[in-house]
Amino acid sequence: MAIGNENLPPIHPVAGLRMASASAGIKKPGRRDLVVFELAAESAVAGVFTQNAFCAAPVTVAKKHLASDGATRYWLVNTGNANAGTGARGIEDAKRCCAALAEQVGADVADVLPFSTGVIGEHLPVEKICAALPDALAALSEDNWASAAEGILTTDTRPKGRSVQREVDGVSFTISGIAKGAGMIRPNMATMLAYIGTDLAVAPALLQQLLAEAVNISFNRVSVDGDTSTNDACVIAATGAAGNAVVDDADSPLALALAEALQEVCVGLAQELVRDGEGVSKFVALEVSGGASESECLEVAFTIAHSPLVKTALFASDPNWGRLLAAIGRAGLADLDVEGVSVRINDVLIAEQGQRAASYTEESGVAAMAPEEITIAIDLGRGAAKATVWTTDFSYDYVRINAEYRT
Amino acid sequence: MAIGNENLPPIHPVAGLRMASASAGIKKPGRRDLVVFELAAESAVAGVFTQNAFCAAPVTVAKKHLASDGATRYWLVNTGNANAGTGARGIEDAKRCCAALAEQVGADVADVLPFSTGVIGEHLPVEKICAALPDALAALSEDNWASAAEGILTTDTRPKGRSVQREVDGVSFTISGIAKGAGMIRPNMATMLAYIGTDLAVAPALLQQLLAEAVNISFNRVSVDGDTSTNDACVIAATGAAGNAVVDDADSPLALALAEALQEVCVGLAQELVRDGEGVSKFVALEVSGGASESECLEVAFTIAHSPLVKTALFASDPNWGRLLAAIGRAGLADLDVEGVSVRINDVLIAEQGQRAASYTEESGVAAMAPEEITIAIDLGRGAAKATVWTTDFSYDYVRINAEYRT
Repeated sequence: MAIGNENLPPIHPVAGLRMASASAGIKKPGRRDLVVFELAAESAVAGVFTQNAFCAAPVTVAKKHLASDGATRYWLVNTGNANAGTGARGIEDAKRCCAALAEQVGADVADVLPFSTGVIGEHLPVEKICAALPDALAALSEDNWASAAEGILTTDTRPKGRSVQREVDGVSFTISGIAKGAGMIRPNMATMLAYIGTDLAVAPALLQQLLAEAVNISFNRVSVDGDTSTNDACVIAATGAAGNAVVDDADSPLALALAEALQEVCVGLAQELVRDGEGVSKFVALEVSGGASESECLEVAFTIAHSPLVKTALFASDPNWGRLLAAIGRAGLADLDVEGVSVRINDVLIAEQGQRAASYTEESGVAAMAPEEITIAIDLGRGAAKATVWTTDFSYDYVRINAEYRT
Repeated sequence: MAIGNENLPPIHPVAGLRMASASAGIKKPGRRDLVVFELAAESAVAGVFTQNAFCAAPVTVAKKHLASDGATRYWLVNTGNANAGTGARGIEDAKRCCAALAEQVGADVADVLPFSTGVIGEHLPVEKICAALPDALAALSEDNWASAAEGILTTDTRPKGRSVQREVDGVSFTISGIAKGAGMIRPNMATMLAYIGTDLAVAPALLQQLLAEAVNISFNRVSVDGDTSTNDACVIAATGAAGNAVVDDADSPLALALAEALQEVCVGLAQELVRDGEGVSKFVALEVSGGASESECLEVAFTIAHSPLVKTALFASDPNWGRLLAAIGRAGLADLDVEGVSVRINDVLIAEQGQRAASYTEESGVAAMAPEEITIAIDLGRGAAKATVWTTDFSYDYVRINAEYRT
């Protein structure tokens, strides 16, 4: 089960970015588990990666290749195996896959960024991956976004994509992206895995800055279960095929338009991760306002997002505001005056001045909790800062999926 | 379902401390939901309370009464209603219950400490509580620990108690305690609710110090679901009936013996909370060693204890060390060298140098995970500090209990 629209929205091709999926038989025979992206030679590339100390081998290798002098020409993605917790051999395995691809296309090994997702702690089936590369390379096309969106999935129930087009100062551009992820979702800097492309020409430093800003208000603002993955990665390619003069001024109209479009794509993809969260039956926007700082608003939002008692109440569609107040109260805010706190579910005021609102009725609370998508708005009443986080409930299915996975 | 011995161990009477339970009909007719303790007039009393900003009305009143000039003579406990999130009226309601008890025994209202546990956000049924007070007062006896242990329960499946006796320097003393709690268990300074008594004469300041120390390594080291209650409280009475000279030197043999015995009682009670955690099927000791500081060991232990992915793997008895490494990696330790980290389940080395141990086999891991009670030992390999935290798994029953509660 998942929340919201089941269908992948139209993903506009990005000139200069080709992709294809193939079946390497990594975990399940016949499943599309390998995806290759090919970037135009002149592309600028930026990426953000997990901050988990146990980062996976492909993350280590991708960061190193991205920082090398050469150009990034290929992204190589496999599912079914995370190549994490695999030590020195894991690094070698990731490099061998990159080298095999590089050899077939006449590129340098450092021109390939590797990405893996799946079970932690098993060695990567390098031979299977290398054997499937020719199929993927032969199928490369700018029209394969949907196939690639399918090819990167694991426990996801559906593909996730976002695409927008803009025209600014006579320049038309496209920005398209896909993502995967349903569990171990509490990204810290990026989420496993998101791939974004634009046909604009953008200076690499500016591209990195815009990506970091967009990720910070999108992938870094969602949580399914609070568990940060070892493999989180989000990369963007700016191919330059739009023919514009290179965007390098963050205050230029084109840069501002790109920033806005990129944020729209990232927020849309991040919300899709939550709507397809493991066992999800509720999509919840936690809007915290009235904070003394943005960081304390985030602290409150994530404390609620990670509270098992709140999440099981959401699963039950139970307007259990006592658990919300208890979570706010343990978020560690200095000198929080509970008298100033109010809580709304959608438009229903349920608590204020540290207690149930006088106008509140159980019927109105139950009605507010009924929809699949709800907003919980908390006003801390002590400042002007605000922040929004998106999360899910905790269901029997979450337990089933994660108790059965790997067994 | 719960883990370990089902029966309440023998609770030795503490001279000078009488107690009784009664039925006030707060939530379920006929259920014992009211408990009164009576303390000898010369008793020293100490207490620690929740640090949740949304602390309940009885916590506010109990702290105020404890800090007042008079002596604490009574502890008044009700279940079925937490009197939390009830605003100014909640404070008045708690005081009215104290006043009713004080009037019946000829004491001052500040001599009574109130405690409540149960549903958050409903007003306290003061009349029902007051009406049941005569029954409780008439039944007061030093031999009623077991009845009191039953009377303070809510979603607990069984009563929890610990009792030890010691003889030091010719002084024999007893220390006995009871506790309740199964969900919303991630105490921060104390857990809802623990009552401890000793017949030693102890200076109040020293008693407070010893209680704080014992709570810090017991109730503050357990977590069922990471949710800190609004009503946590742990109090101790030292009645002085043992006839010893007042203990006021923390380094005296008697003080050291009391500290050790108090810690044994508190650790035993805290572990009982976990063994009876909501939906529990595993009791897990997380022993983190090799840390640069105790606080970073605790950070790692609680990150694991609160990871839904680790907890569902525990439920499945799945030796999913990848999820353990991922949780350690996101605990926020600065400059953690994953090569130095090792993980054992019971005596089986499962991971070292950031990957699966060479000696590890899936069969040995499955065998190590099979028992109801297991130890996960993590060596961070970067210092001499260590800390232990006790926790549970996440099961279908946890979701069921908390999705159905209050509906």
